[in-house]
Amino acid sequence: MSTDHERGRGRRQAKVLDRGSTAVAHPNIALIKYWGKRDERLVVPYVDSLSMTLDVFPTSTTVRLSPGARADRVTLDGTSAEGEVRRRVVAFLDLVRELAGRTEPAAVDTRNAVPTGAGLASSASGFAALAVAASAAYGLDLDDTALSRLARRGSASAARSIFGGYALCHAGQGVGAAADLSSYAEPVPVPDFDPALVIALVDAGPKAVSSRVAMRRTVETSPLYEAWARSSKDDLTDMREMLSRGDLEGVGEIAERNALGMHATMLAARPAVRYLSPATVAVLDGVIQLRRDGVPAYATMDAGPNVKVLCHPADAGRVADTVLGAAPGCSVVTARCGPGARLRTAAGR
Amino acid sequence: MSTDHERGRGRRQAKVLDRGSTAVAHPNIALIKYWGKRDERLVVPYVDSLSMTLDVFPTSTTVRLSPGARADRVTLDGTSAEGEVRRRVVAFLDLVRELAGRTEPAAVDTRNAVPTGAGLASSASGFAALAVAASAAYGLDLDDTALSRLARRGSASAARSIFGGYALCHAGQGVGAAADLSSYAEPVPVPDFDPALVIALVDAGPKAVSSRVAMRRTVETSPLYEAWARSSKDDLTDMREMLSRGDLEGVGEIAERNALGMHATMLAARPAVRYLSPATVAVLDGVIQLRRDGVPAYATMDAGPNVKVLCHPADAGRVADTVLGAAPGCSVVTARCGPGARLRTAAGR
Repeated sequence: MSTDHERGRGRRQAKVLDRGSTAVAHPNIALIKYWGKRDERLVVPYVDSLSMTLDVFPTSTTVRLSPGARADRVTLDGTSAEGEVRRRVVAFLDLVRELAGRTEPAAVDTRNAVPTGAGLASSASGFAALAVAASAAYGLDLDDTALSRLARRGSASAARSIFGGYALCHAGQGVGAAADLSSYAEPVPVPDFDPALVIALVDAGPKAVSSRVAMRRTVETSPLYEAWARSSKDDLTDMREMLSRGDLEGVGEIAERNALGMHATMLAARPAVRYLSPATVAVLDGVIQLRRDGVPAYATMDAGPNVKVLCHPADAGRVADTVLGAAPGCSVVTARCGPGARLRTAAGR
Repeated sequence: MSTDHERGRGRRQAKVLDRGSTAVAHPNIALIKYWGKRDERLVVPYVDSLSMTLDVFPTSTTVRLSPGARADRVTLDGTSAEGEVRRRVVAFLDLVRELAGRTEPAAVDTRNAVPTGAGLASSASGFAALAVAASAAYGLDLDDTALSRLARRGSASAARSIFGGYALCHAGQGVGAAADLSSYAEPVPVPDFDPALVIALVDAGPKAVSSRVAMRRTVETSPLYEAWARSSKDDLTDMREMLSRGDLEGVGEIAERNALGMHATMLAARPAVRYLSPATVAVLDGVIQLRRDGVPAYATMDAGPNVKVLCHPADAGRVADTVLGAAPGCSVVTARCGPGARLRTAAGR
């Protein structure tokens, strides 16, 4: 989690050394999912969500002000970004500039350690890092709540990656400015619960349907969406209880049912959105077999074919072996709870 | 469809020749699905359903009265049936005896041309054949509506297999006897629409969860069930319109969305019911690719991993090739519209 001290240092760097502000953020995995926006423009979710920030696949983003440039320059993993990616980053910078009362263009350089668009929430780590780096570069002094609210405008799941450990993102109340103001994440203190998350990367290619398009289609056309959104409230209540108990079986069962419910709403969209590939289903079968064999393991999936399996750290090796056996072509990474978004200090550069 | 003439002949055989009554029925594929019972005991469905009876995988059932026997004798594919199968057949015979005011035990011999329990509705063809054969053997003179109502008590989908071509099964109104009386199938006249149904048998093994258990669990625990049941009413209205136009694309699109919605409700049950296997998903991907390539092909799935693909008869070969390419281990059978349940005449034996 970034501190005022760190943010202050970042701001000074931006102004004095002109080396820009660099922030690092990690993806998070939603145990209670965010799916569907009630305000597309302000990126306000329909449902509360609850996540665990991971310690793998960080995004590192540097924002450097370019007073003499004609326009923003956006590079992603060393390549000039175009199209939708560039549009979203520039729109986010416009928002930061509006908040800061500034107008200078910026150069944004983002490095992802995770395949973009593969359902591993690179937009969560990406916009969390961008929110921290850009607000520092433009001299905004935001607290964590404000940073979370800001990150949400880039991608709702990014609101949670501002925080380490577990975070709850409020869907908020009201409409317009009231909705914007009341929708942000906050940390959920969970002492002594640091499970392993075995991530099965079954397909690192780009998605057939972007999560933005898929969400909109689900909300607009799936006859099952509203029922899932209602059921998700109960899931959240149950999840908080199980987290507070540090009950892996309880947490896992609720996370799995919440995720399957979300994918069910998509399956009923028109046309259907199905992120579950044959390999996804093979891994899900493997997880069921693990439970039959007495290993507590629970699956969750986001807007892509990858499966993330929650388990005891001591079982992670066995879970990884099962996953690899079920989907031989996949690669496996094991994550634990990770830190919140933060500015990188000068010493680290 | 059986005629009074045929049924009369069957009855005479049962009495005069003591060779029993043999009926043949075919499975049907629901284009608008039946899923969930509002009365478990009377087997009354929650939703109306609409199906196409197939010309493959017939069930042939002979019922022979055994006045001297102590109990019913039930054989399935030449083997004495025990457990749940026997229990359901005996309960059905009890119902027929009650209607006929008779008490003699019977010997029931059933031959299925379809793997039992593989989601290919062997219970539909099975109970349709049993309804026709048993009512003839016990001297009941039932019209098609009464036969359909009777078959429903064995398995709701069997109500539709009484009829050839297309059939609509009413969920009925009221409770108890009123529900029973008002829930039956009737033919839906559809001139000039005889598409091909390419059946991909991806796994002929027994199901992990029986459809009876899965239905009950879905109705009782899935937060998405009611929303699907409501949406299914609109699907039925749209389906009747598209059938009357003979519009394959329209029929296929509605059938696919209705089936995916049904599977979505199961996925959200607690615990989840997932009949979709890796091979199922691979075939679904193949169907999507066919449509991208300009071939109108639409998938539907029941309580099992098999996929049935609706297409123009001229495209059936290409669809079968695609299915085999997507799921190399599977076998493929192509069906068309088939006949209703009927007594077999003496000449045919």
